[in-house]
Amino acid sequence: MFKISAQFDSGNIEVIKAESPHDIRLNIKKDNGSDFYQWFHFRLTGAKGQLCSMTIENADGAAYKEGWPDYQAAASYDREHWFRVSTVYKDGQLTLQHIPETDSVYYAYFAPYSYDRHQTLISTAAAHDGVSLEVIGQTCDGRDLDLLTIGTPNSMGGEGKKKIWIYARQHPGETMAQWLAEGILNRFLDDTDALAKSLLEKAVFYIMPNVNPDGSVRGHLRCNAAGRNLNREWESPCKEKSPEIYYLRAKMDEYGVDFALDCHGDEALPYNFIASFDGIPNLDADKLETSYQYQRALMSINPDFQMEKGYDVDPAGTADLSISTNQVAHRYGAVAMTLEMPFKDTERTPNTETGWSPARSIKLGYSCLDALSLTFNRL
Amino acid sequence: MFKISAQFDSGNIEVIKAESPHDIRLNIKKDNGSDFYQWFHFRLTGAKGQLCSMTIENADGAAYKEGWPDYQAAASYDREHWFRVSTVYKDGQLTLQHIPETDSVYYAYFAPYSYDRHQTLISTAAAHDGVSLEVIGQTCDGRDLDLLTIGTPNSMGGEGKKKIWIYARQHPGETMAQWLAEGILNRFLDDTDALAKSLLEKAVFYIMPNVNPDGSVRGHLRCNAAGRNLNREWESPCKEKSPEIYYLRAKMDEYGVDFALDCHGDEALPYNFIASFDGIPNLDADKLETSYQYQRALMSINPDFQMEKGYDVDPAGTADLSISTNQVAHRYGAVAMTLEMPFKDTERTPNTETGWSPARSIKLGYSCLDALSLTFNRL
Amino acid sequence: MFKISAQFDSGNIEVIKAESPHDIRLNIKKDNGSDFYQWFHFRLTGAKGQLCSMTIENADGAAYKEGWPDYQAAASYDREHWFRVSTVYKDGQLTLQHIPETDSVYYAYFAPYSYDRHQTLISTAAAHDGVSLEVIGQTCDGRDLDLLTIGTPNSMGGEGKKKIWIYARQHPGETMAQWLAEGILNRFLDDTDALAKSLLEKAVFYIMPNVNPDGSVRGHLRCNAAGRNLNREWESPCKEKSPEIYYLRAKMDEYGVDFALDCHGDEALPYNFIASFDGIPNLDADKLETSYQYQRALMSINPDFQMEKGYDVDPAGTADLSISTNQVAHRYGAVAMTLEMPFKDTERTPNTETGWSPARSIKLGYSCLDALSLTFNRL
Amino acid sequence: MFKISAQFDSGNIEVIKAESPHDIRLNIKKDNGSDFYQWFHFRLTGAKGQLCSMTIENADGAAYKEGWPDYQAAASYDREHWFRVSTVYKDGQLTLQHIPETDSVYYAYFAPYSYDRHQTLISTAAAHDGVSLEVIGQTCDGRDLDLLTIGTPNSMGGEGKKKIWIYARQHPGETMAQWLAEGILNRFLDDTDALAKSLLEKAVFYIMPNVNPDGSVRGHLRCNAAGRNLNREWESPCKEKSPEIYYLRAKMDEYGVDFALDCHGDEALPYNFIASFDGIPNLDADKLETSYQYQRALMSINPDFQMEKGYDVDPAGTADLSISTNQVAHRYGAVAMTLEMPFKDTERTPNTETGWSPARSIKLGYSCLDALSLTFNRL
Repeated sequence: MFKISAQFDSGNIEVIKAESPHDIRLNIKKDNGSDFYQWFHFRLTGAKGQLCSMTIENADGAAYKEGWPDYQAAASYDREHWFRVSTVYKDGQLTLQHIPETDSVYYAYFAPYSYDRHQTLISTAAAHDGVSLEVIGQTCDGRDLDLLTIGTPNSMGGEGKKKIWIYARQHPGETMAQWLAEGILNRFLDDTDALAKSLLEKAVFYIMPNVNPDGSVRGHLRCNAAGRNLNREWESPCKEKSPEIYYLRAKMDEYGVDFALDCHGDEALPYNFIASFDGIPNLDADKLETSYQYQRALMSINPDFQMEKGYDVDPAGTADLSISTNQVAHRYGAVAMTLEMPFKDTERTPNTETGWSPARSIKLGYSCLDALSLTFNRL
Repeated sequence: MFKISAQFDSGNIEVIKAESPHDIRLNIKKDNGSDFYQWFHFRLTGAKGQLCSMTIENADGAAYKEGWPDYQAAASYDREHWFRVSTVYKDGQLTLQHIPETDSVYYAYFAPYSYDRHQTLISTAAAHDGVSLEVIGQTCDGRDLDLLTIGTPNSMGGEGKKKIWIYARQHPGETMAQWLAEGILNRFLDDTDALAKSLLEKAVFYIMPNVNPDGSVRGHLRCNAAGRNLNREWESPCKEKSPEIYYLRAKMDEYGVDFALDCHGDEALPYNFIASFDGIPNLDADKLETSYQYQRALMSINPDFQMEKGYDVDPAGTADLSISTNQVAHRYGAVAMTLEMPFKDTERTPNTETGWSPARSIKLGYSCLDALSLTFNRL
Repeated sequence: MFKISAQFDSGNIEVIKAESPHDIRLNIKKDNGSDFYQWFHFRLTGAKGQLCSMTIENADGAAYKEGWPDYQAAASYDREHWFRVSTVYKDGQLTLQHIPETDSVYYAYFAPYSYDRHQTLISTAAAHDGVSLEVIGQTCDGRDLDLLTIGTPNSMGGEGKKKIWIYARQHPGETMAQWLAEGILNRFLDDTDALAKSLLEKAVFYIMPNVNPDGSVRGHLRCNAAGRNLNREWESPCKEKSPEIYYLRAKMDEYGVDFALDCHGDEALPYNFIASFDGIPNLDADKLETSYQYQRALMSINPDFQMEKGYDVDPAGTADLSISTNQVAHRYGAVAMTLEMPFKDTERTPNTETGWSPARSIKLGYSCLDALSLTFNRL
Repeated sequence: MFKISAQFDSGNIEVIKAESPHDIRLNIKKDNGSDFYQWFHFRLTGAKGQLCSMTIENADGAAYKEGWPDYQAAASYDREHWFRVSTVYKDGQLTLQHIPETDSVYYAYFAPYSYDRHQTLISTAAAHDGVSLEVIGQTCDGRDLDLLTIGTPNSMGGEGKKKIWIYARQHPGETMAQWLAEGILNRFLDDTDALAKSLLEKAVFYIMPNVNPDGSVRGHLRCNAAGRNLNREWESPCKEKSPEIYYLRAKMDEYGVDFALDCHGDEALPYNFIASFDGIPNLDADKLETSYQYQRALMSINPDFQMEKGYDVDPAGTADLSISTNQVAHRYGAVAMTLEMPFKDTERTPNTETGWSPARSIKLGYSCLDALSLTFNRL
């Protein structure tokens, strides 16, 4: 007898009807305390060899319904290799069609990055020479907010080093952001990586691979446990309701920021792209140009990245300062950017089997350091 | 600044006072809805290079205080390799003393087996030829109860095959039981294992690597989410309060049982040993002898196992039939046994660095199949 | 354009004609200084997707022509995974038929065990606590004869310990013998292997994983560089022509022998079996019985081994004392045995994809220690 | 008793005297048919825990005696991890001083790249989609000359694609060159490498990871089996004496060359650098500039590479056309370069434990493709 379940890390689904594998009816649950929803992650058991049709009835009401056309859901038998399965968006409903080869198959909006893996990532990094870990606060659910420092900070004799911040998963369902952060970390943990070592001679890195662990474990798309969209909390973060940003911004205030990369996924656009801080008040044109040079460098080194497609640029002075990139650029005079990766695939460099994937996110993470090195002298 | 946290899979600790790393005061929390407690699992951050003294004040009231003398706590920097650290039990309190080499160190009563790993174990097994997965029910917290079937059951043409049941972690804090179950599973997933293949010609295996996932995730020692000690529920399991046993016993009723191995850890005794069903009503002496021959075979093939030390034998007819081994032996006329492994170490074959460990549990799992093969003709 | 080559470690083939992939004509070269031949190992390049027919014309004159019926040749694309390909023995010729999936495919009589791997095996073992390496002499070609000692020998305080000798590849083409030796070594290198550790409390192991490195590198079936069949040199080994046995026997004289396992492959018989020393003069019946108990123990723990089929037993007093097992049993009063594994497959526990294989040989190696432990008290 | 041996792949040493580990006297053997020598590779056994002093008496007469000052020899216990040991060059002799931690330790001029690993590299690459293998000829010793083609060549519909040639180990003792080639190959075997995939849209790669397998196996520094320095054979290669270049150049003639990277190691200079074709007749200044832009790109992406130090530039028109880079640039109008890596270490980015190493060579190989992509539009 087949079954659907989601009672595990980042699980999210509600079963409406599951009498026949040919017509399974599902809903995605809202993020706690919010109306946002789009992330799903569930297991189907006992349906080996059967044609399964799984329809998400409330797809139309999801946060970004333009995310569904041309979207293919991710699936995995072993929770390590994720591939895409046939997915159709029609009449406001999203239907996954698949014949599972085994009795246990997981489906997700994108390859999940579990809290268990997060714990191992942090522990492994913290065990490496030159890396320190600071728990900068607790989330609403009581989880640690883990900030890694790589290199020698000012307080330890690293005067004059640039402060580089890289953070991911303000929006917890955008797991590709943490895969990318893992890629960046990998380079610092590899003693044979000459570029990473050379960067540490002139910069100190503050890396927060998961800004929103509560939302991650709860299976949210965009919000923390208190229902706050953290990337709208940067102007006046609240210790009780958005402690993640409250503590992160306080650390930025304390340590300083020269360069910031905020890592995200975009539901709709089939591209990797970067949004800059064009619309902030008192714009420093030179710093803005640096952010564009960074993008050009990234594009030159990684064809999965492009600059043609992306968000509309904010008109001068109209930037929303509750958004991290704008606030950070404004507050610290930093070069700040929002990196967006697709939930779908890259239009020009597609991989039909996996779509955009953990491995490709990790690779793009490698390239992010290349691009930083190529433009570092402008910081 | 150092911190203690336990908000993660199987985390369990309460901080009483943590002002100085030299005098951290802690309590273990009770299993939900029960007075049992002894499992602990927490992370210490930010204390690299400092001598840390962590005292569990309520050790004296733990479920098995005879578990503390000569006990050394497990620790890990990478969550994969676990070693033992200096631990002293005195005046009813248990004190761990350790100088962490990194900023992130985990301490636990025994090397944890996370639900994430459980999910991968089940998925990987289910993807193998000849293995099927059945979700036999849900726990109180809504988790799947995963039962793996290996080999060809009666219903599929396997008439006359012996039914072998192996299950672990009725008591969720006894994680060594799941490590052992992983060892047993490994052999069936290895196509070059001649003994495992030969067993499948004459037997079908029903393996439940984690009977109590709720307690596991919650960081319990002995109980499920409803506070029930599942190994006292076998006489009359309750669908609402002990669904784990309700569904497991129902499946045993449906499929039949010839041999059952219930896998556990023992807090106090520094030995691997087996408890049989000596005290059940209408004892079948020949079957009991088979259980002793099994033990002798296991001892002959794995020196970490022994038969001299263990529990006192129940006098004839006095067995508690709410305990799995007794109920299963009585109910099905099966050869049923409780395998106990130490939280401490084996007295005669100690490993001072790791104590009893995941790797050694896995090895003992391998040997459990050897012993079954060596005594199979008696079933 | 397709090509055949064999100029590499253990390569052996001679091309007669290779104009069309449909009719490649080959000969196996004789072992240097001898008429023995049967081992082949070559690479076919540039034939991706083509049906290749490769006929060994001189198969009929090979050392054991009864080795060809029902034999399937081994093949590999990556030199790690070896599978069997369609092979026909007809009119005294052996024809391999295969459509290679890639441009580079290796064919061999059995999965090779390269000298490179031998070097790593020895180095890795020698780096482990409790293992020492002794180069006991040089071969005719100037290679080191590597003898590993595991455990504490008499000279180092290990008085009273039994001396166990395990050696492989007197006949270099019988590579399964070294795979098995690797399996035995693995257990001693695994600190969690309780049985291996317990054996070291009462025994010291002398292991020589490759007695005949010259023949191995040269691509021989049976002989060393000087054309000597080393397993006929044990009565009066020659320092110049059979230095391998000259030095090995001298070390046995020096250290003593209680138990000896000489590891081989058999070209014809599709079974794992053991030959004992039934025919030696002044036979010690009790020791002979020990060798049979060892076989029974091995059979009980590994269904790939059997006792029904094997060589005819030598009548009393007729044993050839130039053969290692007979000489060692006779000379030292030891329990000595010749373990034979198939080039083909095991008849009763076949694996159609791989036939008898490295992985299965390694597993049988594990079991050899189990069997030794089960019968150790008789030594 | 300690022993020195070198009878294995790429082994090279001659023992003059080895009575005491404190004073082992050695010579390096000349390349067959030549006076060049400098590569050494030998094993020391039986000297665990002893202070060993190994003096190469004929160091002064080696091909590049300026290679010895500040040089530290490479050593390994497991043949995988290589570290440097204390080495002194004095009075024309080179002395290695080391206390081996195990009974088996290898010393070499640089971490070896065995023919066994070469075989696996080729086989693995050839098994990948889009890679084909061509054996373009045989060496003097009868070994295959393996040329990998990656991407779609003209003959298969790849009209207009640039022809990129990468080849290594004309000088067999310069093993870092093959490690680098392995790094380049890795990227093409990784389906998630966007840059490698994009290069294949506009180029076809001809990669020959080992031009001189005979010299490699024989333990030569510079020559092939016939004593020819292959990088002086490009003007008029000889089918009998330098078949490696005879066949390689013929293939270049057949397929065409737009870009060529010839990979080497330099004995003396502690730098990674590139030599261009400045001195060829009728120099194309634009192509030369491309080669310098390539170097700048490589430097920008990998701080282990630099442009300040290197060989003196050939005055106009004086280039030796028997050298590959000059001949290839001249013959095909190609952008041709000689990449040199140090046997010692990089002066500005040193790693005291490993010196220049396989892992760093592999990384530089990755970067070589980055640099190619960054300058590709100039080809």
